[in-house]
Amino acid sequence: MTADLVIRNAIVVTCDEAGTVLRDGGLVVRGGRIARLGQSSELEQDAASAKTVVDAAGHILMPGLVNAHCHAADSLFRGLVEDLPLEPWLQKVWQAEGAILNPRTSHLGSVLGCAELLLSGVTSVMDMFWYPVETVRAARKVGMRVSTGGFFFDGPGVTGGDLQTRIADAEAFFEEFGKAEDVFPATLPHGAYTVGPENLKTAREIADRHGGLFSTHAAETKAEQDDIRGRYGSSVIRHLDYLDLLDEKTTLAHCVHLDDEEIEILARTGATVSHNPVSNLKLASGIARVPDMLEAGVNVALGTDGAISGNDLDMWMALRLAATLHKGARQSADAVSTPQALAMATMAGARALGAEDRIGSLETGKFADMILVDIRRPHAVPMFDPVTHLVYSTAKSDVRHVFVGGRQVVRDGVLTLHAIEETMDEVNRLVPRIAAAIA
Amino acid sequence: MTADLVIRNAIVVTCDEAGTVLRDGGLVVRGGRIARLGQSSELEQDAASAKTVVDAAGHILMPGLVNAHCHAADSLFRGLVEDLPLEPWLQKVWQAEGAILNPRTSHLGSVLGCAELLLSGVTSVMDMFWYPVETVRAARKVGMRVSTGGFFFDGPGVTGGDLQTRIADAEAFFEEFGKAEDVFPATLPHGAYTVGPENLKTAREIADRHGGLFSTHAAETKAEQDDIRGRYGSSVIRHLDYLDLLDEKTTLAHCVHLDDEEIEILARTGATVSHNPVSNLKLASGIARVPDMLEAGVNVALGTDGAISGNDLDMWMALRLAATLHKGARQSADAVSTPQALAMATMAGARALGAEDRIGSLETGKFADMILVDIRRPHAVPMFDPVTHLVYSTAKSDVRHVFVGGRQVVRDGVLTLHAIEETMDEVNRLVPRIAAAIA
Ligand SMILES: [Zn+2]
Ligand SMILES: [Zn+2]
Repeated sequence: MTADLVIRNAIVVTCDEAGTVLRDGGLVVRGGRIARLGQSSELEQDAASAKTVVDAAGHILMPGLVNAHCHAADSLFRGLVEDLPLEPWLQKVWQAEGAILNPRTSHLGSVLGCAELLLSGVTSVMDMFWYPVETVRAARKVGMRVSTGGFFFDGPGVTGGDLQTRIADAEAFFEEFGKAEDVFPATLPHGAYTVGPENLKTAREIADRHGGLFSTHAAETKAEQDDIRGRYGSSVIRHLDYLDLLDEKTTLAHCVHLDDEEIEILARTGATVSHNPVSNLKLASGIARVPDMLEAGVNVALGTDGAISGNDLDMWMALRLAATLHKGARQSADAVSTPQALAMATMAGARALGAEDRIGSLETGKFADMILVDIRRPHAVPMFDPVTHLVYSTAKSDVRHVFVGGRQVVRDGVLTLHAIEETMDEVNRLVPRIAAAIA
Repeated sequence: MTADLVIRNAIVVTCDEAGTVLRDGGLVVRGGRIARLGQSSELEQDAASAKTVVDAAGHILMPGLVNAHCHAADSLFRGLVEDLPLEPWLQKVWQAEGAILNPRTSHLGSVLGCAELLLSGVTSVMDMFWYPVETVRAARKVGMRVSTGGFFFDGPGVTGGDLQTRIADAEAFFEEFGKAEDVFPATLPHGAYTVGPENLKTAREIADRHGGLFSTHAAETKAEQDDIRGRYGSSVIRHLDYLDLLDEKTTLAHCVHLDDEEIEILARTGATVSHNPVSNLKLASGIARVPDMLEAGVNVALGTDGAISGNDLDMWMALRLAATLHKGARQSADAVSTPQALAMATMAGARALGAEDRIGSLETGKFADMILVDIRRPHAVPMFDPVTHLVYSTAKSDVRHVFVGGRQVVRDGVLTLHAIEETMDEVNRLVPRIAAAIA
């Protein structure tokens, strides 16, 4: 059978369980999936008859990164609200969001955010935002996968506070995208401090009924822990556990402030934690107990959070911080190992999306979601170990080519499906209105 | 008088004391120095007769960054020794250095490191290494300024332990480069734990005699503090102060572990601290008390340290961490302000090099050391404040053009004076020998 695509002559970092690396290898793609991996020399016959052959000499071939927590459309507000801790910061953010957001502007911001993610090699993202249908449309415009769905928030928020509408929207999202290969549908209540117990359970029930995912912010700040303890008499994770919201379908963003027992609860229930170190530092939230979570067996994935806190969506910086921040903070050189960090950005994210059989590593039968990282650059020389290079010295600009389901969506650092200049121009025209929104 | 170069239509972030930003401005260069700054409209006449005119629309124009602590040639060993704390790590590093380094390989590594620095917009670097003459030759090869000079180390080290040779080399360095505009000569003993009091004083005396700078590693780890206390009965900074080594000519790299009184000593003496957050996290050294040092009035500059600890020489990552790490670690959103962080990477570095009258900001009469940062990228849109953008979302790959003394040394992300591919090839040929050195 003719191959759609053969990539050869790469250093292949598969990110599989065994940590397999091929020093001179490649793979064969058929029907959007990886048909075969092997040494370059073993792929000659496939290459001879393939529709497209890529010579990846001077590159690392690896799976696309999975960003487990993002708000792509919040890129509209990048750098707008600065040097505040989370709570007063959030008030300003909500003010700006309320003034600016509608389906059209949310779409615009999501395209901007998705473009930035895809250009840096993120091929799947879990995204929480108003108008999630617009997020899907944006992700499809650039050609990436997205996990999103009905957003829950008890206040009026951007769209007004009608619970029945939120439920109907969440249901409709599953109807529309429940069978799509490029969408991992979910319900995403904002957090335990903004969504009451009943509505958290409602959101969860909708997800369960459709076999979907569930994600919320949790234990981001000490103030949030105090708030929840004051309201419900127990800490955030205990509260969520008591409501029966924690299992393998659940991703909790941040989890900066946890006690030992909360870490045990996360490990026992199989919930994923999305670690967002860039956001946690910038917003002064603190430093998550990642080494303790890993040791307890929690599935720790990695996220960028939104560009309004970040101030960008750089998974490579998040990856590098995941590997180094905890070493420094604990003065312990083995706090998070190099392979552990890389797994956070790949397989742990795939697990968060309930898609460890389809994404997160280069293995036969999985989606051909993959990136080529240029290593012919001064900061990549010498390279004794490609995994070390990926974790400690790769920059987002090293990602030159990106494939999703075997389709090339970034070529030489440029999106193939969408002219991002138009989006940037449109966002720039919106700047005076955005600035006025918090003035 | 005809201008050599006029740059117009940029957002100019001058990094001067007042934080002057021109929304649509530029500057005029004559004889390697900034002759004039102004609004673009005011520069029309200069542009009409200038030898070269650069239309910088879509870019931020700012001073070149100053990296206050580096070991460029250690790029040869990037990623070689991983996941160890400083002390056992240093033993391995010394083993590799001893086996590989000679003037030729040091030159090679320095070219690699200087190329990486210059491509990212660093136009001046303080570098500590064996064979400092080779560092100068490397910096000149790519076209950047360097502060370096005689390296002191009590053990045999790479070159053998002859003190008289070290002294003669240090003297010869001042003879050769004392009057060069592109060299800020210094003596650089390795640290108080590797250089005894007498030799520290000897190194300092040589620098003083020539009006040079002085730099050493200090208080990088808790173990170092314990070691110095055990040997000399006082902490590292007190020890250096007692030896009369601290004043405005002195730059101390790291200073992670300080007590309040040591911070006061640094403030009182006017010594510079080079904060190296990337290295401090990776090597598990800890988190420096930067907010306390800033509050006490210490001149805190910013450095990358070497790629053997880093694992790259990314001043933009160092800058972003300088601005965010301390917010997160202290759960305080105003721990280090945005302008404070930018000043660390520019004017504070200029002060460290005793060259605040020549570099570190765009001001009339200073060297035309400057960079153009591309802001037509998804992660740069929208941009409410250029300083916020530079600190929190600029990546090294956004630096497209670099000028040193008005000469363009990077054009469209490529060195103009040196073909870096040849250097990378040469380093790659050395890889088996380097790997064997610690096997
Ligand atoms: Zn979030
Ligand atoms: Zn150093």
